[in-house]
Amino acid sequence: MASLAPAIAPRSPATIQFSRGVPPPEAIPAQELAAIARSVVTPPAPRVFQYAPSDGFLGDAVLREAVAARHAADASQVFIGNGSLQILDLIATLLIGADRDVVIVERPSYDRAIRIFGRRGGETVGIPLHHDGVDVEALEAQLRKGRTALIYLIPDFQNPTGVTTSLAKRLRISALAAEYNVTVIEDTPYRQLRLTGAEQPLFSELRSGARVITLGSLSKTVSPGLRIGYAIAEARFARQLADLATDIYLSPAPLCQSIAAECFSRGLVERNIDVTRDLLRPKWSAAIACVQAQFADSCIAVPEGGFFLGLMVRSRLTERELIAAAASEGVVLTPGSAFFPRNEQPAAGTVFLRLPFHALQHQEFETGLTILHQIIRS
Amino acid sequence: MASLAPAIAPRSPATIQFSRGVPPPEAIPAQELAAIARSVVTPPAPRVFQYAPSDGFLGDAVLREAVAARHAADASQVFIGNGSLQILDLIATLLIGADRDVVIVERPSYDRAIRIFGRRGGETVGIPLHHDGVDVEALEAQLRKGRTALIYLIPDFQNPTGVTTSLAKRLRISALAAEYNVTVIEDTPYRQLRLTGAEQPLFSELRSGARVITLGSLSKTVSPGLRIGYAIAEARFARQLADLATDIYLSPAPLCQSIAAECFSRGLVERNIDVTRDLLRPKWSAAIACVQAQFADSCIAVPEGGFFLGLMVRSRLTERELIAAAASEGVVLTPGSAFFPRNEQPAAGTVFLRLPFHALQHQEFETGLTILHQIIRS
Repeated sequence: MASLAPAIAPRSPATIQFSRGVPPPEAIPAQELAAIARSVVTPPAPRVFQYAPSDGFLGDAVLREAVAARHAADASQVFIGNGSLQILDLIATLLIGADRDVVIVERPSYDRAIRIFGRRGGETVGIPLHHDGVDVEALEAQLRKGRTALIYLIPDFQNPTGVTTSLAKRLRISALAAEYNVTVIEDTPYRQLRLTGAEQPLFSELRSGARVITLGSLSKTVSPGLRIGYAIAEARFARQLADLATDIYLSPAPLCQSIAAECFSRGLVERNIDVTRDLLRPKWSAAIACVQAQFADSCIAVPEGGFFLGLMVRSRLTERELIAAAASEGVVLTPGSAFFPRNEQPAAGTVFLRLPFHALQHQEFETGLTILHQIIRS
Repeated sequence: MASLAPAIAPRSPATIQFSRGVPPPEAIPAQELAAIARSVVTPPAPRVFQYAPSDGFLGDAVLREAVAARHAADASQVFIGNGSLQILDLIATLLIGADRDVVIVERPSYDRAIRIFGRRGGETVGIPLHHDGVDVEALEAQLRKGRTALIYLIPDFQNPTGVTTSLAKRLRISALAAEYNVTVIEDTPYRQLRLTGAEQPLFSELRSGARVITLGSLSKTVSPGLRIGYAIAEARFARQLADLATDIYLSPAPLCQSIAAECFSRGLVERNIDVTRDLLRPKWSAAIACVQAQFADSCIAVPEGGFFLGLMVRSRLTERELIAAAASEGVVLTPGSAFFPRNEQPAAGTVFLRLPFHALQHQEFETGLTILHQIIRS
């Protein structure tokens, strides 16, 4: 329906979303995905509308082979879920127990992960995150207290800070996890979106003896709508995940799994990673330049890829006041405290800001940042 | 690869699966679903490969309208999930608390539901199930003890017994739920598959004042592979489900939701219900005839539809011995004790058997039943 515009419309400020991290539409290969969808439902009678076969709860066999090949793992180690977040919920359900209830996370960390651990009986403890990874002394001190069920890390271009954990810290954390017999979950949704610097090994490649579960996803590289994520773990644990999933939701939709498998076999995953990196690069470099011009002293790390920049800003305003002031200028922020266990503030007089740069035009990013700068420094 | 058969192959008995309830392939309208899948990914650029819109976590708007129309509800009361089982897991997470930890179920009840309640902190209490529903005196005695979070019922053609709860008992249970301020979950995956008798009202239609959550699914009527289920509840609670789902798995795949919405708008859901009932009818009537001939005194109820018949048989063999004996004759059974809280046996010298008839040819059903009869009565 056409709406009748008033003769003189009030000019509201454009909204700049420094909030939800939805990929830009041009990063999703919708036409190729549509072609794949059409092909996987082509007769002879497609099995994708039936239940998954009873041995298929680990996931579509072709898809698991493709994921295993990417990770030099065996298909028996691969479990496919409805996005990696849901797999984290299954892991939390399996591994958090009455005697092992502490979950160690980076501080700050992914807000939904923190809430999942709390909901499944975990006490989430944050270890301060520096530009090159967590404070390993603080990590060891926490491990020494016992009761740790899990260490949850996002080692590449972390959400929400953009930090990449250095090799030295990966080695040290891995050794500590082995020493204290604690499972490491490495969540790697952004790993393929590296824009500069050398790729660091996965924790699963370090062979320290630590138990490692690697989580990956197609949401940031091909299609969030497929809702396909995966875990790579010991085969025995992958089977436990499948058994638990079978008891909660059976399996991801076979149709989505078949499409994802075709995305791998047609090379679309790798091709679209290149497309996405090309889309990200100018936004990323412009965002870094803006931040260095206006907030150089507040930037936690210069990200080497991914979607996010994190600022730790000194502010006379409280978080709530800052968000309200920004909103009145058309800048929408996610409350930074959501990324801290128990929604704690990082420190008195300090506010944490997550700045996603992937879904904004760089002019929008600059305008938003300038507005934030004026609010914070006024 | 071709296998080299030995010159004289030992003749192993044909396997008869009285176990998993997978619908027969002819009950799934694969070609129409494929056509719908092709249409929903047709350009202009399909949005189904993006995240669901941020206000779409309750589910696809068209699909919710269709479900609401079926249930004379408002779309704001509808929440779409990855199958109804997963919604049950969300409900258990939300409603089972430290002070309200008892979940009342029919005894026997759906095995996966029982395990979900236990996993989310519930103490599951079974109320004996008769041919017309639970023992309402025992239900009231249990409610009087307090601490009840939920009453979970499958009122139509129950899994695993085939029992339909009578109107009189629906009214009484509903009044008790209102009196004791306890939420009723009615799980209705088989409801549309009625083959005889008059449809009973849903608990949600009884207006006793009790809070009711109705769970439904497309798995038994259109396609298990779509993994689309729904809940109808108070709008406020539907929103709570959406918020929790957003924190665990975001949303079901938009592609599957769009296909499901089209299934409703093209009339495929209703058409395929008729197809499925026509497929079921001869299997159902033959199964009832067999059971009445061989196990008339053990049959809990003559089902009026659905997939299942339940037997409570006197047996000198233990459940384990009976399952092993049946397996050696090529008959695969689900352990009946799985349908009882804490895997209890129904009573000394008694074994519960769930007999799905929907996925077997009636000759197979008869052969399987005869084998069971010989084992049990020998």
